[in-house]
Amino acid sequence: MTLLSVDEDLRARIESRLSEQFAARTAAAQRYGAEFSALWRTAARHVLGGKLLRPRLLLALHEALTDDTAEVADATTVLDLAAAVETLHYSFLLHDDVIDADVQRRSRPNLIASLRDGHPRPQLSPREALHWGQSGAILLGDLLLSGVHQSFARAELPHRQRLRALSLLDHTVTETVAGELTDVALSDQVVPADLTTILAMSADKTATYTFELPLRLAAILAGRPPATETHLALIARHLGLAFQLQDDLLSVFGDAARHGKDPYSDLREGKRTALIAYARMTSAWRGIEPRLGRPDLGEKDAVQIRALLEDCGARTFVVNLINEHAFAARSLISGVDSAGLLPPAAQQVLLAVLDLLEGRES
Amino acid sequence: MTLLSVDEDLRARIESRLSEQFAARTAAAQRYGAEFSALWRTAARHVLGGKLLRPRLLLALHEALTDDTAEVADATTVLDLAAAVETLHYSFLLHDDVIDADVQRRSRPNLIASLRDGHPRPQLSPREALHWGQSGAILLGDLLLSGVHQSFARAELPHRQRLRALSLLDHTVTETVAGELTDVALSDQVVPADLTTILAMSADKTATYTFELPLRLAAILAGRPPATETHLALIARHLGLAFQLQDDLLSVFGDAARHGKDPYSDLREGKRTALIAYARMTSAWRGIEPRLGRPDLGEKDAVQIRALLEDCGARTFVVNLINEHAFAARSLISGVDSAGLLPPAAQQVLLAVLDLLEGRES
Repeated sequence: MTLLSVDEDLRARIESRLSEQFAARTAAAQRYGAEFSALWRTAARHVLGGKLLRPRLLLALHEALTDDTAEVADATTVLDLAAAVETLHYSFLLHDDVIDADVQRRSRPNLIASLRDGHPRPQLSPREALHWGQSGAILLGDLLLSGVHQSFARAELPHRQRLRALSLLDHTVTETVAGELTDVALSDQVVPADLTTILAMSADKTATYTFELPLRLAAILAGRPPATETHLALIARHLGLAFQLQDDLLSVFGDAARHGKDPYSDLREGKRTALIAYARMTSAWRGIEPRLGRPDLGEKDAVQIRALLEDCGARTFVVNLINEHAFAARSLISGVDSAGLLPPAAQQVLLAVLDLLEGRES
Repeated sequence: MTLLSVDEDLRARIESRLSEQFAARTAAAQRYGAEFSALWRTAARHVLGGKLLRPRLLLALHEALTDDTAEVADATTVLDLAAAVETLHYSFLLHDDVIDADVQRRSRPNLIASLRDGHPRPQLSPREALHWGQSGAILLGDLLLSGVHQSFARAELPHRQRLRALSLLDHTVTETVAGELTDVALSDQVVPADLTTILAMSADKTATYTFELPLRLAAILAGRPPATETHLALIARHLGLAFQLQDDLLSVFGDAARHGKDPYSDLREGKRTALIAYARMTSAWRGIEPRLGRPDLGEKDAVQIRALLEDCGARTFVVNLINEHAFAARSLISGVDSAGLLPPAAQQVLLAVLDLLEGRES
């Protein structure tokens, strides 16, 4: 089993469940007026734009962990929770985009831009139109976050398992929001941008909901004991940090046509990443600092910053950090301690995730 | 039993439970850094500033509806859910204040202003400081909304009752957000400000979570049948509209020192209320429109707008509307249909709420 090939079927099942859920919400929204159902219709279009990494990981690992003699959750319940995991991701993106004043996501206008430009409304000033888009994103994020909790709270599971899943969700939301707050504190310069703070922020903001949530949820839904959850949480933290650090590299050194983000957006926003934290401690910083965070940063500045990040060793440092986390994850997945906790099929799913890291371009 | 006198004891119990909950979250937040625990500490201070109308209503009506032979929820569970109802209110206020760019609430700086001015941070521009405050309000709102769902999902109730409570919460969040979206659409002039839209918006945005949620939740927790919930939902809608319309009147004609809001903030923001929707259909509109929504609107403009709203009949119209809703609520509370659904003690609690309407100044 790999995540990329065999699982086109998983992708189709998740997309179809998400479409059904959003269609139902759009229909129910009609009684609250045209704008409210338009919000849901727009959301239905945008929620499906991603790679569905998180729900696919949940479904693949759940299947690999499930022992037919100890069935805890039926297929519908697992699929509903997989859709909820993707919806949670999207609800975080919505509020992030408001906080970061972003209007692009995955190479396309995001929901804020769609609402802003949605109707021809000549009477609206650009400022009012943006306010309408950002307000819609705040409110839709609230609805989706509520919907995710409803899915967990209503899941047809034995009560003990449902409580474990709810605790995991609570932990996930807390860590993600704490990480996002630190991210804002870094960019608003409320806290200093040292490497320790940046790595903790990445783990909290991204690793928890991208890896820890689907991995531990798979264990809960397969009726595995808490010890398996603890082991998977460790693996998830290493996987998450490796992926986030690679994201940081791709945003600066990758091909924008492939990763789909606004080219050099990290540099233009002056985002505090591990790459930048390392460079700050070197003499290259003198050349980087004046260019970083400039709204008009273009290709020429980016080329120069890239050269400086290479020369000062920041790129090598981050590449090594990625390799260390990948190595740690691999040891935890295949090590002797894993034997009693993860069946071979589950180890293969997790190793396939590690393989994604190599040669990743988006 | 009245809501105002006897129930100082209720208030103390709710405040103490809220304080405990926020203290626990503040302590748990420390592992995510100083800024995250400061956010919770600030929240703990702000969440207690209100009148606690919603949780007091829940506790008072729950007691009046409870028949000792059919105990469904223990006192701790009911108190936890009462605290959750107040927390839900506060989470809506946080996101509303971001959307409306407000920095004042209940005559004092709100959480956004507290975070903005919290630490002496001379390196922050006013724009960065406000961004820090607003981002904190978005993220805290997300945490509180999640926490409310967790309280409902974990409530120690028979599963059927817990599902009823969760459905009610889902309905409440949906209506409140739909109402808020319409409110934004009205102020951004995305939809026309007719009276029907404005009244529907008020009912959705405020009446649902202020009255329908605590009233129906009291019935669920007392083990009353769905018919009681339906009856209470009708009463709640009338009570909610009467209160919201009175709020609109107070903001324009009331004593700011008593109602605690920024004086004339509705007029300064150009808020589309029933008062304004009525005036728009009259010749007074010519005199009101140029002054409404001006950021520099002062005492002199306010006096002139007030006179015009009196002369054109808008004030009388809204007063009559309040009386109609109060009359409808009273008939539903005391009418023959109520007899089988509401015991006399419950009718008294609801009539006491109606009495609050009279002579209300804040």
